[in-house]
Amino acid sequence: MSKKKENINVSKLKVIPLGGLEQIGMNITAFEYEDSIIVVDCGLAFPADDMLGIDLVIPDITYLKDNVDKVKGFVITHGHEDHIGALPYILKELNAPVYATRLTMGIIENKLKEHSLLKTTKRKVVKFGQSINMGQFRVEFIKTNHSIVDAAALAIYSPAGTVVHTGDFKVDYTPVYGDAIDLQRFAEIGKKGVLALMCDSTNAERPGFTQSERTVGKTFDTLFEEHKSSRIFVATFASNVDRVQQIINTAYKFGRKVVVEGRSMVSIIETASNLGCISIPDNTLIEIEQLKNYPDEKQVIITTGSQGESMAALSRMASNMHRKITIGHGDTVIFSSSPIPGNEKAVTKVINELLRKGADVIFQDTHVSGHACQEEIKLIYTLVRPKYAVPVHGEYKHLKAQAKIAQSLGIEKENTFILSSGDVLELSEEDAQITGKVPVGGILVDGLGVGDVGNVVLRDRQHLAEDGIIIVVMSLDGYTGQLVAGPDIVTRGFVYVRESDELMEEARVVVDEAINHCIERGISDWGKLKNTTKDALGDYVWRKTKRRPMILPIIMEV
Amino acid sequence: MSKKKENINVSKLKVIPLGGLEQIGMNITAFEYEDSIIVVDCGLAFPADDMLGIDLVIPDITYLKDNVDKVKGFVITHGHEDHIGALPYILKELNAPVYATRLTMGIIENKLKEHSLLKTTKRKVVKFGQSINMGQFRVEFIKTNHSIVDAAALAIYSPAGTVVHTGDFKVDYTPVYGDAIDLQRFAEIGKKGVLALMCDSTNAERPGFTQSERTVGKTFDTLFEEHKSSRIFVATFASNVDRVQQIINTAYKFGRKVVVEGRSMVSIIETASNLGCISIPDNTLIEIEQLKNYPDEKQVIITTGSQGESMAALSRMASNMHRKITIGHGDTVIFSSSPIPGNEKAVTKVINELLRKGADVIFQDTHVSGHACQEEIKLIYTLVRPKYAVPVHGEYKHLKAQAKIAQSLGIEKENTFILSSGDVLELSEEDAQITGKVPVGGILVDGLGVGDVGNVVLRDRQHLAEDGIIIVVMSLDGYTGQLVAGPDIVTRGFVYVRESDELMEEARVVVDEAINHCIERGISDWGKLKNTTKDALGDYVWRKTKRRPMILPIIMEV
Repeated sequence: MSKKKENINVSKLKVIPLGGLEQIGMNITAFEYEDSIIVVDCGLAFPADDMLGIDLVIPDITYLKDNVDKVKGFVITHGHEDHIGALPYILKELNAPVYATRLTMGIIENKLKEHSLLKTTKRKVVKFGQSINMGQFRVEFIKTNHSIVDAAALAIYSPAGTVVHTGDFKVDYTPVYGDAIDLQRFAEIGKKGVLALMCDSTNAERPGFTQSERTVGKTFDTLFEEHKSSRIFVATFASNVDRVQQIINTAYKFGRKVVVEGRSMVSIIETASNLGCISIPDNTLIEIEQLKNYPDEKQVIITTGSQGESMAALSRMASNMHRKITIGHGDTVIFSSSPIPGNEKAVTKVINELLRKGADVIFQDTHVSGHACQEEIKLIYTLVRPKYAVPVHGEYKHLKAQAKIAQSLGIEKENTFILSSGDVLELSEEDAQITGKVPVGGILVDGLGVGDVGNVVLRDRQHLAEDGIIIVVMSLDGYTGQLVAGPDIVTRGFVYVRESDELMEEARVVVDEAINHCIERGISDWGKLKNTTKDALGDYVWRKTKRRPMILPIIMEV
Repeated sequence: MSKKKENINVSKLKVIPLGGLEQIGMNITAFEYEDSIIVVDCGLAFPADDMLGIDLVIPDITYLKDNVDKVKGFVITHGHEDHIGALPYILKELNAPVYATRLTMGIIENKLKEHSLLKTTKRKVVKFGQSINMGQFRVEFIKTNHSIVDAAALAIYSPAGTVVHTGDFKVDYTPVYGDAIDLQRFAEIGKKGVLALMCDSTNAERPGFTQSERTVGKTFDTLFEEHKSSRIFVATFASNVDRVQQIINTAYKFGRKVVVEGRSMVSIIETASNLGCISIPDNTLIEIEQLKNYPDEKQVIITTGSQGESMAALSRMASNMHRKITIGHGDTVIFSSSPIPGNEKAVTKVINELLRKGADVIFQDTHVSGHACQEEIKLIYTLVRPKYAVPVHGEYKHLKAQAKIAQSLGIEKENTFILSSGDVLELSEEDAQITGKVPVGGILVDGLGVGDVGNVVLRDRQHLAEDGIIIVVMSLDGYTGQLVAGPDIVTRGFVYVRESDELMEEARVVVDEAINHCIERGISDWGKLKNTTKDALGDYVWRKTKRRPMILPIIMEV
């Protein structure tokens, strides 16, 4: 205790979330102490509904690039897309070492391979309980439980104090693979004094405890017993290795052969299997081509597509688009998942399709969350006893719910910080405050393009999507300014032209008149000509159809 | 009983759903007996996610137009959009009398007024218990309960037998306005013998009973007591007159003034008030401009926007876009609603915005469904005792769930019909079977256009939305076939051109080469020229960006 007092001139620790707050996805947080920066997680976000044509969104790391000499590396808590998905893109801009546990690193390496980054990226697999030194920081990996194996919390030690970051976690006393969360270590670190706790807020609105993953295994046993005579499909998240393990265990118990279907799931199970994170009894896993050698009641197909994704294996099997398997009468399909907000309609669509094909669909008691509910959050706070509470991982309402929990446990309101992405939170034993703002945002990835689609392009796509486009082309004589060809009108996404003769004919007259009026009055400024065309045609179309298609006049000089 | 035997040569009754099955919305069903057709409901559907730019969807009534001489009129069960919304569009194509109860007709008349159809549409307000003769049919309106006042079930009497159609209903023994559902009449009709029951399937997956609307009133009392010192906002469905009544009752109890905000809600409450379906104590309802004369704790604002609709009053108030009210610190916002599937993300967005503004958001125990759960469905089946079960109003999974309930009550599987829209179900005492199919589908309404946006236009909009458009214009000499201007390239929604100089420059070279290659080889066929341009540019763009924008070559002849 006396030692702390001596350090009165110690610098402050900066915590700078570059994403992940007020949104689901794109988790990335910088910790800065003097000349050292470490980055926790590097996730992507899936595009919002109005980001038309966008594949994914990655964080803006301007702040890291501006401080590139300080950056000591990326510390990754677990292998989900919202924590690792941006890594291949970010590493191309900022090469730094990556630290992660075994399976997490396995999944990262698959990604780096696809992006040809394996050779150029320094990587280190870290064990639970192990610490790594990164400049002025030391980072310890602590075992937790989550819906993917090898998830870690982090104890981030700096001269200004310790921050505990839970990553995504739940408390599972009876996990399927490996140990329960290392609550003793949380307690030990807490006992020594923790400046701030950054805790997963996903389920902070839900009372009680999240159930053990093992409860799902028991349900599988019951369901397999009840559906002894039918072929069984189980749809779940590709990365939930423990879930797949339990399905395989039950299948083995009932003497069924298992096929894993769906590219992402096959890849993760292969990785997990190579690393020993899943144990598959001999002669249980078979190739999809071998299915025909077994009767229906001896088959289990574990598949992706539990979120209703139209291109995933389950949707394709339900709609007869899959090359090798069709789901039909007598089959039982178990959804071992719950719909992620926004996917409800897509999931329902697949369920309706399966029922219509005659399949039996089961949607109950076959999923548990991977995130801590209120009582688990209270447990972690009580073990860690932080001075400051900094809820992370969630939309505003989740962060707010956790802030309330922290306050109910005696943490003062002014020591609770609901941050926005970009906030610079400076922490020390003495005080904590938001002292600044760094640039943040989402960089849109569309095909190979990273950041070349911005607001202007998105607005155009939204405009085009709404009412289509009308193109007006004309050729003017470069010397006389007279019309030598056109105006011609071409439309796409506006009306079905063959059945709208009259409308299109009148539109042509309106444009003709507008342009001739300009030319007669000697107006040769192309800008004016274009605007006149736009206005006249826009007014006419609005009057006739109450639509506002994009109107694009193009003038060629001959 | 002996009489029935004599009627062995009686014609069959045809039941033809023209929409509303396998989907939510667009409820419309034709009943045909010899020379008579009656149409039950005439609803719209909201566009699916991939119907870009579409405002609403109405049913294809080709079958009714082909049999226009038979059509005796429209019988409407209640005033929700999915039961009345297509009326103004359909009446323009097929003028027939409209029969409905008082509030339902009031809401319909508002619509007809907007479409200038009031004078040309024959209308008759029907009382509960009253029957109307429509050709060979007699139709009786039976009192039910639902989330809108004056909802009716129908007993449809034909020479071939009686069909009971529940409309949308629940069993509310203690409704807020008017009587409980007329269970005695259901029993009486059932006793006389019913051919088929067409029953609401919306909640057929949910066990138990739907709670009485009145339970929500008690919750309002508790919440108003708990939030005595803050301004209170309640967001709910515009058409839920009983809900508004209960909010007003509680507000009056607590001495608060009430403002109703949101165009659709103002209109329906006005109609309900004129018809005596809502009773508002004097000096309780005030104009929005008068709010400033009262302290916060004496105000209640009832508003639309409970589904997170971005243009509704609540969203505008939350985001400071409303001209007269801003929600902020100290305000309490009650969501008296649950999100309709598909709206979850939009609702969450508004909640996050409200919390961030400092408002208290309440989302519990302040809504009950308007649809019957499993026990209520069993009750109706048991009172009506139909020979045939024809579940209606729901997606396939809901219809299937009701079919299971019907079978659990002893209705034979072969007497249970899950229909698809367009199926012709022929019914008689002797047997029932699907004997044919009539044309059905959704007609897209976009602005003033009804049906002028079809699959081609939609596909173009989806294509434009995904990756934008590249337009290539060029002028050719009409005699020599030589290029006299261009090719010029214009893009929208593809990339931000100012930052993609190199890409656009190379694209121009690719197009130049392709066209010159054609012209040098004497190819003057415009189709070939266009295709060559499309292919060359498409390949180049895909290679460079992995995107497939629409490519539109336009050739002008000079």
